[in-house]
Amino acid sequence: MTAYRAAVIGLGAMGMGMAKSLVAAGIGTAGCDISEAARDAFAAAGGKSVATPAAAAKGADAVAIVVVNAQQVENVLLGPGGVLETLMPGAVVLGCATMPPATARELAGKVQARGAHYLDAPISGGPVKAAAGRLSVMASGTQAAFARARPLLDAVAEKVFELGGEAGPGSTMKMVNQLLAGVHIASAMEALALAIRSGLDAKTVFEVITASAGNSWMFENRVPHVLDNDYSPKSAVDIFIKDLGIVLDQGARLDFPLPITETAFQRFKEAKDMGLGRQDDASVIKVYQRDGGIKLPGDEDS
Amino acid sequence: MTAYRAAVIGLGAMGMGMAKSLVAAGIGTAGCDISEAARDAFAAAGGKSVATPAAAAKGADAVAIVVVNAQQVENVLLGPGGVLETLMPGAVVLGCATMPPATARELAGKVQARGAHYLDAPISGGPVKAAAGRLSVMASGTQAAFARARPLLDAVAEKVFELGGEAGPGSTMKMVNQLLAGVHIASAMEALALAIRSGLDAKTVFEVITASAGNSWMFENRVPHVLDNDYSPKSAVDIFIKDLGIVLDQGARLDFPLPITETAFQRFKEAKDMGLGRQDDASVIKVYQRDGGIKLPGDEDS
Repeated sequence: MTAYRAAVIGLGAMGMGMAKSLVAAGIGTAGCDISEAARDAFAAAGGKSVATPAAAAKGADAVAIVVVNAQQVENVLLGPGGVLETLMPGAVVLGCATMPPATARELAGKVQARGAHYLDAPISGGPVKAAAGRLSVMASGTQAAFARARPLLDAVAEKVFELGGEAGPGSTMKMVNQLLAGVHIASAMEALALAIRSGLDAKTVFEVITASAGNSWMFENRVPHVLDNDYSPKSAVDIFIKDLGIVLDQGARLDFPLPITETAFQRFKEAKDMGLGRQDDASVIKVYQRDGGIKLPGDEDS
Repeated sequence: MTAYRAAVIGLGAMGMGMAKSLVAAGIGTAGCDISEAARDAFAAAGGKSVATPAAAAKGADAVAIVVVNAQQVENVLLGPGGVLETLMPGAVVLGCATMPPATARELAGKVQARGAHYLDAPISGGPVKAAAGRLSVMASGTQAAFARARPLLDAVAEKVFELGGEAGPGSTMKMVNQLLAGVHIASAMEALALAIRSGLDAKTVFEVITASAGNSWMFENRVPHVLDNDYSPKSAVDIFIKDLGIVLDQGARLDFPLPITETAFQRFKEAKDMGLGRQDDASVIKVYQRDGGIKLPGDEDS
């Protein structure tokens, strides 16, 4: 029996954290990214850096695809130099991007047709937890897929939710989480903006709300970005345009009404239209600033 | 120096808890409610039960008004048999209902014109914390108002946020909290309904989301009502119609856009139009059930 080997395709904030966690766990890991700087950083951290998904997947027992969207996952998997060119029969592909459940099912079918396994495995927790090997994984797939992925999951995740025996439920759960996360970010900014407009001190609002029934994980996490006047992208507006877009597509497909999600989506869209797509998602408060005339922390006295 | 005496006007779920906490703290407390059953229950718990606000306020150092809305506060304070007929100069009135900040300022003026103090003191935490003397109070008022209210506050509250030197900021903060609470309830129901429609198990959704970035205080508190098929009113749909109405009035007054609040308000409104106004606010999920065709926990198999 040879040693377990892993691959991570996509060395962004999340993928790099996972890849380094695998190296730290003593698992031989190949990493691949279109950015040469990211590849060099991973090599410097003790990983094996390669140029293509096919090279990364060669000989790997488990291949985690940690790119931004479904289109990128498809390219990485099926395109020229893609994972399916070299994937071993019996190996497992983990689809870690947020994508429509139907896409996850489709990709699973293509991987399984090659005699390999697919784990529908969106991740949650942010870059800090990724770096610490403490992600949450919302996973579904066959027992064989889980079994083959287990050493990788043990290295990168604190919690693995096992949500069903086939691809789909993992992505559905992530979609539901993103619906709430996106609505909570936008409503945090709506509430904070109204509070400021009504004469309350933003920092005091943070202290009171985080100790009250109006609190949310996102309020607690994102409002400090506004207080610190720091809109460098920990997670960008564009991410929630993509993720709430997936939620709304699902709603349309099922003819299911999602009016609150739709309204929150429009707030992110307004922020993007203001040129803030690549800024932190707390930038949604700038839509309220534009429309409601408020002064935010860090603004010059006028 | 005579012993400190308190009064509580309004012996509903919140007021009764506060009144009993005062009795438990050894403070002589008069309680008043339009419901004879509520008055009898308070008398049985060792309180002094009286028929009118004027009778309750007579000789009291601090009078907490714990009724449902601003109109009721005005009646209790200014109407025939009202608090101002007997209130001692130097005593303090605590306005604990959720009301528009402008109303709080107006009532404060009327109380202060009689030589008494007013504390803008909306409460948060729900009936369980009220009964335990562990409420949060979002309070603003003069130092004299705080000082005179202190023994009462010590008996009923775990946390007293001191938000400013005059009436207004207390009610404003409560309004911001209610904006978030209402939006989070409605979005919890939107997300849970979509999850069910997409084939996920409701209980599993609760377990995963409460451990993920999509969590909110309200998601964690209200979703179990749906899981238990228990819509008996812990807090009713009508409460959030009132409270989000206050938020939207404030938005209109300031010409400030609140699209997410407006959309959530409409969901509560739909629930009320379905005849669910007096049911628990988790009943908002029944709007999604009607429009999206989902089976909820406890529904008959069809």
